Order: sequence, then C-alpha cells, then structure tokens
Amino acid sequence: MAKANAFYAQSGGVTAVINASACGVIETARQHKAHIGKLYAGRNGILGALNEELIDTSKESANAIAGLRQTPSGAFGSCRYKLKSLEENAREYQRLIEVFKAHNIRYFFYNGGGDSQDTANKVSQLGHAMGYNLNCIGIPKTVDNDLPYTDCCPGFGSVAKYVAVSTREAALDVASMCETSTKVFVLEVMGRHAGWIAAAGALAQKHADDAPHIILLPEVPFVQTKFLKKVRATVNKNGYCVIVVSEGAQYKDGTFLADAGGKDAFGHTQLGGVAPMVAELIKSKLGYKYHWAVADYLQRAARHIASATDVEQAYALGKAAVEMAVAGKTAVMPTIVRTKDKPYRWRIGEAKLARVANVERKMPKNFISKDGFGVTAAAKRYLAPLIEGEDYPAYKDGLPQYVTLKNQLAAKKLPTKW
Amino acid sequence: MAKANAFYAQSGGVTAVINASACGVIETARQHKAHIGKLYAGRNGILGALNEELIDTSKESANAIAGLRQTPSGAFGSCRYKLKSLEENAREYQRLIEVFKAHNIRYFFYNGGGDSQDTANKVSQLGHAMGYNLNCIGIPKTVDNDLPYTDCCPGFGSVAKYVAVSTREAALDVASMCETSTKVFVLEVMGRHAGWIAAAGALAQKHADDAPHIILLPEVPFVQTKFLKKVRATVNKNGYCVIVVSEGAQYKDGTFLADAGGKDAFGHTQLGGVAPMVAELIKSKLGYKYHWAVADYLQRAARHIASATDVEQAYALGKAAVEMAVAGKTAVMPTIVRTKDKPYRWRIGEAKLARVANVERKMPKNFISKDGFGVTAAAKRYLAPLIEGEDYPAYKDGLPQYVTLKNQLAAKKLPTKW
Repeated sequence: MAKANAFYAQSGGVTAVINASACGVIETARQHKAHIGKLYAGRNGILGALNEELIDTSKESANAIAGLRQTPSGAFGSCRYKLKSLEENAREYQRLIEVFKAHNIRYFFYNGGGDSQDTANKVSQLGHAMGYNLNCIGIPKTVDNDLPYTDCCPGFGSVAKYVAVSTREAALDVASMCETSTKVFVLEVMGRHAGWIAAAGALAQKHADDAPHIILLPEVPFVQTKFLKKVRATVNKNGYCVIVVSEGAQYKDGTFLADAGGKDAFGHTQLGGVAPMVAELIKSKLGYKYHWAVADYLQRAARHIASATDVEQAYALGKAAVEMAVAGKTAVMPTIVRTKDKPYRWRIGEAKLARVANVERKMPKNFISKDGFGVTAAAKRYLAPLIEGEDYPAYKDGLPQYVTLKNQLAAKKLPTKW
Repeated sequence: MAKANAFYAQSGGVTAVINASACGVIETARQHKAHIGKLYAGRNGILGALNEELIDTSKESANAIAGLRQTPSGAFGSCRYKLKSLEENAREYQRLIEVFKAHNIRYFFYNGGGDSQDTANKVSQLGHAMGYNLNCIGIPKTVDNDLPYTDCCPGFGSVAKYVAVSTREAALDVASMCETSTKVFVLEVMGRHAGWIAAAGALAQKHADDAPHIILLPEVPFVQTKFLKKVRATVNKNGYCVIVVSEGAQYKDGTFLADAGGKDAFGHTQLGGVAPMVAELIKSKLGYKYHWAVADYLQRAARHIASATDVEQAYALGKAAVEMAVAGKTAVMPTIVRTKDKPYRWRIGEAKLARVANVERKMPKNFISKDGFGVTAAAKRYLAPLIEGEDYPAYKDGLPQYVTLKNQLAAKKLPTKW
C-alpha cells in the first residue's frame, strides 16, 4: 500500500495494559515509515474521529511512548460510545470516512471489546462500499475475557493476577483472625456476564481447603439454601470462609443479586454492591461476623501488579495489528493462539472481525466444578499461565511513574458541525 | 539476666508487615541464646497464653522464619481480645503469670496497638507485684498509625502506599473515561478515628488538580452542602472527581456517615459502606455517574505492594524489642524516631508503656488543609518517606510465595480449666 496516515482509538473500559497495546501500535508504526505517515489517536476513543479531535502522536518522544507500556488506563482517553447500526445511523459512519479522507487516513486500529470489533468491521465494509480503501484492524481488549477466537484478551491476565493475589492475601488475613473476629470475607470482582475474573480467584488455592472456598459465577444460578449450607460447612471445617463473587452473579431468572438500578451508556444495568448483599445475607441467616471488599476500578487499573504475560501479549497484539495493516489486510483481528499449557507457549493468530463481532464467550461447562461453587483443574490449567510473571513499573518516591502524554491535537480540516 | 524462655504474641488487626516484626523478634532471639532459650508464640495472640497454647518456634527452619518477613497477616494467629482491667479480672492476669511460670517464660513481647501496649504494661506491673520478674516489651503495630511517641506505626506505611498507588491508578482510569462514563469515583479506606490512611491518598498527587480531589477525614465534620459544592466544582473544572473517604468519616455530632450497625469484639461500632453512601448522595443530588470501591482487608494485607521503609522498620522494631529485653528493660516499647525528612533518616527510640497505653494520636491540625478536604504540605512531608521503596515478595507461578509455618504446640503443663 502507498504511504498514508493511521488512526488508533481506545474503546470501552480501560485496562492495566491497553496502553501497552498502544505502545505496540505506535512503536511498530514508527518502524514502518514507508507505509505509515502520521499516527493519529482518537481523543476519547472513536469520539475523537467523529469530532475530528485527532491527537498527533508524532509529537510524543520515544521515551514517552515507551512509558505507555507500563501505564494503566487509556492514555488518549476512551469512551463508552457504540455506533448504531449502519441502517440506524449511516451518517456517523460516513462522518468517520470523511474525517479519515480529510486526513489521508487509510489505516484504522480499534482497540476494544466485542462492540468495537463490530464497529471496526462495519467501518471496513462502509469504506469499501464508498470506494475508500481502508485497512481496519481490531485489537482485542477486555478484562472480561469474553472475546472468541483468541486464547485470552489483554487486560484479563492482569485483573486475574490482581484477584488471585488479593484473594490469597486477604485469606491469610482472615485465617489469622477468625478465632475471635471475622469468619466470612466476601470479595466482589468484575465480570458482568462471564465468570472469568471471579474464576481467577481460584488460582490463589495451593491446597484443598485453601481460599477461595466459594466462587459465585454468573454462569451458575444462585440458590440461597445451597449457598448458605456451603458457607456453614466451610466455617465449621476451616474456621472461616472466603468468597469471591462476580458482580454478575444472578438468580435462575437472570436477575442480578444486586442491581444498583442505573444503566450505563450502552443501556446495560449498572451493577455494584453484590458483596455487601451476600455478606448481609450470611450475617442474617448464619450470624457470622463478616467483612467485604469491592475492588471495582482498582482491579482493572492495577498496573503495579500486572501480569508480565498479559503485558507482553498486549504489546504483541498492537504490533501485529500494524504488521497486518501494512500487509494489506483488513477486517481482521490479531489473536493469541495457545500452543502449550505448561510451559505456556503462544503465537499470534488472526480472526475475521465478522466472526468475532458481538459474540460473547462464556466459560466452558467443564471449567465449572460439579457443585457450581468453584472451578475445575481444566479451568486452572487454562488460567494459570495468564498471570505468570511480574512486570513492575518504575517507581519514584514510592509511587509508580506513569506517563502523561502531551496529547496535542492536529488542526481540523472539516466543519465542526456535521 | 539468666537464661529463660520468651513469649511473643500478635494482637488485633493484622498487617502486611506484622510478620516482619515477628521475623525480627525470632531471628534476634536466636542470636541471643545465652539469654533466651525457647521462643514461644501465642496461638491466636494472647489467647495462646491464656489457653496455654504455645507455639514452639524452634521447630521452624531458618528459611521459614526468614520467609515471615515477606508474608502478610499473623503467622501465629492474632485475636481481638482485650484483657479487662486488673480490678475487673485479675484472674486473667494471674493465669498469664502462671503459664509463664510453668514454661519459665521471663520475656514477654506483645505486638499490637494501644490496647496491647496497655496489656503489656499491666502484665509487667502484675509480675512485679507477684514477685515474678518478667521483661515486658511492647512492639508497635497498627495500620491506623495512631500510637503516640513513635514517628509512625509498622503496617501504616504499607497501607499508605497501597492507598496512594491505588488512588493514582484508579484516577487515571476515571480520567480516561470521564467524557462519556463515570464522573465520580469514591474509594473507602480504613481509619476508624484518625484520618492517617485517607490522608495518604494525597501522596498520589503530583500536580495541582491531581486526584484525589477530596479527602474525607474523621477529624473534619462532614457538611453535606459544602461537600457537594466541592464535588460539582471539581467535575466542572477537571471533568471528573476522585474522593478518598475514611471509614470513620463522621458528622459533627460524632455519628459515622455509614454505620453498619454491628459491634466488634471490643464493642466498637462495625463500620462499612461509607463509599456507596457518599456515591449515592452525589448521584441523587448532582446526578453524576459514579463508581466506588471498598478496599477493606485488601489494603492491610497487600504485602505485594508493601513499603520497603515499613518492612525495614517493622523488622527493626522486633529486633530492638529483643535487645531491650535482654538488656533487662521492661514496660517499654521501641519506637521510630525521625531525624530527617528528606532523605528520610530514622533511628530506634524508646517509650514507656505507661505513657503509650490507650493514647490515640490524631492528625495534627496543621496537617489538614484549610477547606478540610485535603492535607497540607507539612502532612505530605511527613507521609512521603513512609511509602518509600518497594519490597517485593518472591513469586512462583505468578503468585507471591507466602510462608505457612508448622505451628507445633508445646506440651501443656497446667490444667486446661482455670
């Protein structure tokens, strides 16, 4: 392909390693000067393209870009903004193409979850229909680990490590105090519809009877009597009980255990507070003293305890996206292909966006233990390598040195109103 | 002093570094074989002495003891059990002395907060009154940092680091999403009556307007209108607002903002859930989308992000306690004396238990900013060195390698009933 500019945007909930993907994209684009001119990043994700707010990444030093690899969150801003279907709002897609045209952008890298892969796919189709050649490459990202056709999603491994480490630490705390104090500890973690994150808590277990003793997955309908029975049996046996509960834990009819009532920008129910609900239930029915924690953003922002495997994969996927684009590919997403469990071996693969878009991967049935309160050896075999290795950021004065970019916008070429 | 045995107990809420103090005690005791025979540890703290459940630490390898330095929680078990006053329950104190006598224990090391220093002092007095020579040394420990006569308390520096790092990370997350998503993030941290832990969030600030934008301290009565005004002004200016709230945040009349209703073993109100309460208040009055996190035990168990300064001090205080005991001292507590802010310099000092016991150190007034929503430069100068340095535990398979001891009990010599 002839030399043209590129556009990169971060989408949806940010992670500890999405900037590592950005780092991979930018560093690799800089190595392909024959194909790629300027690399623009969308200010606040795809909104940056719609509003023609294009961050000129060429203004950033090599040091600053390298620093992205160790910086959590979305360095250019992300957004929860889903483009409607082509039928409903073709104007938005046309505007994207107009902005791309105005800035000679022929490469589009979209770093996000299922919704974003869908958008990237549609933009590719529309560009083709409008006779504007555009190489659209999706880059997977989601802490929920729910994209298909990839061994895992960048962001997940680091959340998994955070949850496993925190569970092990809190469990030691509870164990040492349970004789006279807290008997039950409940940790609430993310995962709206898939229990991958909660399942990762199981990695804290070294021996039978180790915490977490109960994992509440969205995939397993919550049955109160069965749950309380298990809590009591665990306290009777071990003196304490540690529970990891997914924010998406639900009853058989699909009602979430705790429903904060609000809706997010995509119309999904905004969740929060299942841990206190579960803790109160235990207190009222069994009388045990409890403590609970809700990790919320702390878990997905915890770059300080990121998985080295996750960081490496996030970077590699960003790099691969650029290589695919300059090779002329479009409507594809680089993936992680696992070739061996132990020691973990993986390589970069490729999936068509049309197949990835809007498919939500749940945990396989054989990953969930018979009683529904834990995971199987197969699940642990899958999960274990994803948290391997530490990749500590540099510290100064006791705090991680995360970079802040200049984020200078390129001059606009189009009318602001559209 | 002639050779005799020693007793060490952990008391109250455990921390990321109380085992580092245990490590200092045990390793130093092993170096003083001329004075100290066996070192027993109380199973579940002081209850271990009352129940004559004495863990024989000589059964543990040097490797296992060294591993304590990097292991959070209380390796021998801790307890929330406060001995009553001598007048109310002299029998308990007598029982302690009886157990000590039966096992030729002449050194008593009590690792805890204000209540524990009080107990150690009383045991020293009673031993003296009963003609049983006993060297009672307190070892400071409390994440609340509320003991007097010491620059800081082991456990606090690591919680402070956890809170500062987590605040910086979560703030980056919120900042990158605030255009279309969460505008307000609330992090609830520990600190029942003193705001030291919440104040440490301020270390996340590098520049003006950096998060946390608001810190709610127990020392500053909560005024709803003033608070909401500040939240709105912050969102208007920065696009988002990050709040760190102490579990002990309270109204002018001393009522906690959130009162879970329960009581702990000491009769203190069991707190929890001020973050969701504050978040809901903001949503209902200002309409901002929010997220909240409650760190709970995660913060005090987070050995993976412990402050190297804290670990070093915890160890040094354990070591100093043993050295004071073999030098014949009693009813004292080793302390941290700060000799310089930057670079931080400190040495071990000494305080009389009678003066330490039951005194709660609040934050000085000049540490609290004029508007009450933050801390001053003086506070930061005090706090900053306490989080300096990283002291990572060893990892295996992506998880910290925390030690579990054998915890073999010595044979009993007294009737179980007393």
